[in-house]
Amino acid sequence: MTDLVTPTAADREDAAAVAASPPGAAAVAHMKWWGWGVPGVAFHHEDKPAFAPFVLKAVGIDLHTASVLEQPDFGALDVPASIAPDALRAALADAVGADGVHDDDLDRVVHTYGKSIRDLIKVRAGHLPRVPDLVVYPADEAAVQRIVDVVVAQDAVLIPFGGGSNIAGSLEPVPGEARPVVSVDLGRLDRVLEIDEASGLARIQAGALGPSIEAQLNPRGWTIGHFPDSFTHSSLGGWIATRSSGMQSDKYGDIADIARGMRVARPGGVLDLRPTPSASTGPSVREMVLGSEGRLGVITEATVQVHRVPQQRVIHAYFFPNWRAGSAAMRRIAEGDVHPAITRVSDGRETGFSLSTSKASKGFSGLAQKGLFAFLKRRGWDLDEMCLSFIGYEGTPAHVAAQRKVVEKAVKRSGGIGVGTGPGVLYDQKKFDTPYLRDFLLDRGTAGDVSETSVPWAGLDAMHDGVIAAAEAAYESLGRKGWIMSHLSHSYHSGACLYFTFAFVMGDEPEAEYDVVKSAIQQAFIDLGGVPSHHHGIGVEHAAWLPDVLSEQGIGVLEGLFAATDPGRNLNPSKITPT
Amino acid sequence: MTDLVTPTAADREDAAAVAASPPGAAAVAHMKWWGWGVPGVAFHHEDKPAFAPFVLKAVGIDLHTASVLEQPDFGALDVPASIAPDALRAALADAVGADGVHDDDLDRVVHTYGKSIRDLIKVRAGHLPRVPDLVVYPADEAAVQRIVDVVVAQDAVLIPFGGGSNIAGSLEPVPGEARPVVSVDLGRLDRVLEIDEASGLARIQAGALGPSIEAQLNPRGWTIGHFPDSFTHSSLGGWIATRSSGMQSDKYGDIADIARGMRVARPGGVLDLRPTPSASTGPSVREMVLGSEGRLGVITEATVQVHRVPQQRVIHAYFFPNWRAGSAAMRRIAEGDVHPAITRVSDGRETGFSLSTSKASKGFSGLAQKGLFAFLKRRGWDLDEMCLSFIGYEGTPAHVAAQRKVVEKAVKRSGGIGVGTGPGVLYDQKKFDTPYLRDFLLDRGTAGDVSETSVPWAGLDAMHDGVIAAAEAAYESLGRKGWIMSHLSHSYHSGACLYFTFAFVMGDEPEAEYDVVKSAIQQAFIDLGGVPSHHHGIGVEHAAWLPDVLSEQGIGVLEGLFAATDPGRNLNPSKITPT
Repeated sequence: MTDLVTPTAADREDAAAVAASPPGAAAVAHMKWWGWGVPGVAFHHEDKPAFAPFVLKAVGIDLHTASVLEQPDFGALDVPASIAPDALRAALADAVGADGVHDDDLDRVVHTYGKSIRDLIKVRAGHLPRVPDLVVYPADEAAVQRIVDVVVAQDAVLIPFGGGSNIAGSLEPVPGEARPVVSVDLGRLDRVLEIDEASGLARIQAGALGPSIEAQLNPRGWTIGHFPDSFTHSSLGGWIATRSSGMQSDKYGDIADIARGMRVARPGGVLDLRPTPSASTGPSVREMVLGSEGRLGVITEATVQVHRVPQQRVIHAYFFPNWRAGSAAMRRIAEGDVHPAITRVSDGRETGFSLSTSKASKGFSGLAQKGLFAFLKRRGWDLDEMCLSFIGYEGTPAHVAAQRKVVEKAVKRSGGIGVGTGPGVLYDQKKFDTPYLRDFLLDRGTAGDVSETSVPWAGLDAMHDGVIAAAEAAYESLGRKGWIMSHLSHSYHSGACLYFTFAFVMGDEPEAEYDVVKSAIQQAFIDLGGVPSHHHGIGVEHAAWLPDVLSEQGIGVLEGLFAATDPGRNLNPSKITPT
Repeated sequence: MTDLVTPTAADREDAAAVAASPPGAAAVAHMKWWGWGVPGVAFHHEDKPAFAPFVLKAVGIDLHTASVLEQPDFGALDVPASIAPDALRAALADAVGADGVHDDDLDRVVHTYGKSIRDLIKVRAGHLPRVPDLVVYPADEAAVQRIVDVVVAQDAVLIPFGGGSNIAGSLEPVPGEARPVVSVDLGRLDRVLEIDEASGLARIQAGALGPSIEAQLNPRGWTIGHFPDSFTHSSLGGWIATRSSGMQSDKYGDIADIARGMRVARPGGVLDLRPTPSASTGPSVREMVLGSEGRLGVITEATVQVHRVPQQRVIHAYFFPNWRAGSAAMRRIAEGDVHPAITRVSDGRETGFSLSTSKASKGFSGLAQKGLFAFLKRRGWDLDEMCLSFIGYEGTPAHVAAQRKVVEKAVKRSGGIGVGTGPGVLYDQKKFDTPYLRDFLLDRGTAGDVSETSVPWAGLDAMHDGVIAAAEAAYESLGRKGWIMSHLSHSYHSGACLYFTFAFVMGDEPEAEYDVVKSAIQQAFIDLGGVPSHHHGIGVEHAAWLPDVLSEQGIGVLEGLFAATDPGRNLNPSKITPT
């Protein structure tokens, strides 16, 4: 729940630089090379009176006096020269057209990293041990296939690139890679090709970003129902390659449920999986492409489930006296008969954050003005422990009403109270803005990022508390002021996803410091019965913890799969498993 | 909806033979070596006056005059001698205990085939080109692991065996296999080890059969909710190895949804997948074990979702004037807000079959007596086209009522009418008895089996009609009288499973004739946008059609996986893919 401003002069220069690029790239918009989102849009807090005090409390930074970093200067970067040989350039130009092969520094740097805080720290510091040697912009699947075959024939390395929002290190070339590295930008494959209205299936090109997909589906009455935090800057192919989940996945399913058919350009030809509702056809190749992060080839399109835009869609807000009450309510809802589209509850810390980002005149401030918080205090609630929850309902009005009735019984049983739809409307409007906050904090010397896991209900509260304790111990070991907060973001029959947001004041070695904090959080995920990632993927960032949940034998199966399907290690090597 | 009788003298002899086997086997009950189910239980029709006329109409056999085959004589079989060398016997005896290693002919023949009609034809004809050389009965996972390691070390072949109900040829040794073949019977691993009541998860051994699982869960208030037709004689490990679905999968999910964690004995150690609700951890190893049919190792246990036994459970029956009305209703229900536990509709042919298996005094006969059918006829319905549907509701009474309201609106809109819960009670009692009918027909010269696919809604009616036409063309090409009928058995957002039952009068070459019919049906599945199997697996029976839905590249991925994880081809080789 943040709020954004319009472009600065520097932002406009960035945008102009992108627009001045040759046609292939010009058709594809990229995020800022140094941060999240559209050039010219940024977080600000001038109209949010509670934000500065919150930041002061959380990480000890006084926003009124903090020094603010200048926007980094692209010209100051030392970008290594492309090592692409002429033969590779020529073959790729044949494959994709001369205007689809780029080697300018800006394009290459844009395609070097995703957008984790580690990525932002590195790119801002000009830490560029290896950047792609060429960026190619295929316009169709046939061109992608030609690229794949050229790369394998010439023993180069191929890294697929969708929206560039990855935070698991899935996009970066291996630092020591001696072979030429080609980043394949799918941005021109952005169309909804076909809607099968009788089946609720749509064939969509892999490079289409979230807003483009909805813009093509909505006018015809359909939605894909997939809304990850990265929605505005992530692509269908990227969602599939990382096993993404969205904010409404409780209803629409994770992308693993949504994506039925897939086409993947592989060495020698297209892997084409028929889009059927379910199948018993051996080990699931579909579920191997899901999460493959480029190691099996380049996803070119998918046939996905789409749904009629629901008649009614409403998000209700609830407050619970504390985390345990909130998580208990979510579990009660999950084990019951009704399944809302969104089940989300923030812990007390994140609730405090949400309240701090409200504008003076709206949302929670309005509630406060109405005396709600005073009333809760009189009832014995500790407002620092109080937890904000959003439950989303979709369907016919009768269905929405029936769901609400069951949910609100569970809320009441768990000691919660409903506060209506006002906060939910704000949440819905602002839900994709939070990533901008990271740049704001980074400009002020604070590293913030997110990490998430899933865990059975029996271990949920212990996971919540244990991860917070682990992060705090890490901050203490660094001697730095830090913050961590959490929400339950998705419910399943047997457990839920816990999503953590953390930030700390950086010292002289931000990357090493980040490692200490991030590793502590990941290790707590494992120690407390979770997984290294619920929906962000493995990449290189989470690979160390993969054996803990798949066992050595499971890693062996993955390594065997990769070795058998990509013997030359040409397809995004060293992601997911080092070998 | 059949009805069974008590043992004959011959059946009792079979049962005695099994009981006389050594301890390891004695603890594990097997189906008849020559047919389905418990020795001594069989289909009869004396109290079902409409059945004989139905069979006469369907396949032209007059049950009053048809000659009936004798129960096959085990002593007449020419069982090839075991080729297991002493070293293998000794090592397996070390691994599992001497009483857990069997080489008697009955045990070996029981473990040679599953229970497809092709299997029954072959085993009754004494067609035994290759039978397992040894059958071993491990009592725990450690013993399974030792067996796997012995088999690989001695370059033998291992075939896991659960309930033995497979109909895809997944259990049979490759006819030309020169190495010793070991069938690993998981029957002694039959316990529910642990229930995590907070998470709704249970840890269950892979050899546990359906009734045993429910018998261990129900007294504690839980159910797995997985009820395939084979339920009484199929195991958890078998369900996972073949990607099974059950009758209530619309609510509980296919086994691929239900099974969260898995342990698989692989060469060198146990593959152990952590049971979490969802994960983004690369290509899904979990979804590789699902459907693996023994090619990745032996599944020893799984952690599965379990649900509280619902407060209310009721199955309502509905009639539709014809197939298109019935399938349209199922689609309307699937695209709506409520999701019943069972959505099933039979076509006119199968409805005729169901009516014919009613006892004179009960169920549909009762409805007929009440004049319902006369009423429908007056309304213009063609009773031969009329389709019977079952919709199952579960949950709180309020939830059941709310679901029914929405469903019955869709039923009405599609021209259907409700006929209450009477037929559903009968369906529920008799649902696992149908497989016995195959033996009854086979004894009377008629080969019957089932085959199923899934298809998007847009192609559902064309699939229904096209498969029937393909089967009828096959019958005509053979010059034989045949029958085929169908029901929609599972609904998904984007399509459904169509389940076909077919039968024809055999000539002199039953296997070759069966090939003609079965191939015609499978080819129609492919030509009309479906898959070779929705929940029975691939084995050797459906392998020819796998490239059509996975593409050659997909087959290459599977072959690569198998070659990498089982380089010696010791683990149930040649199933799913020939190499």
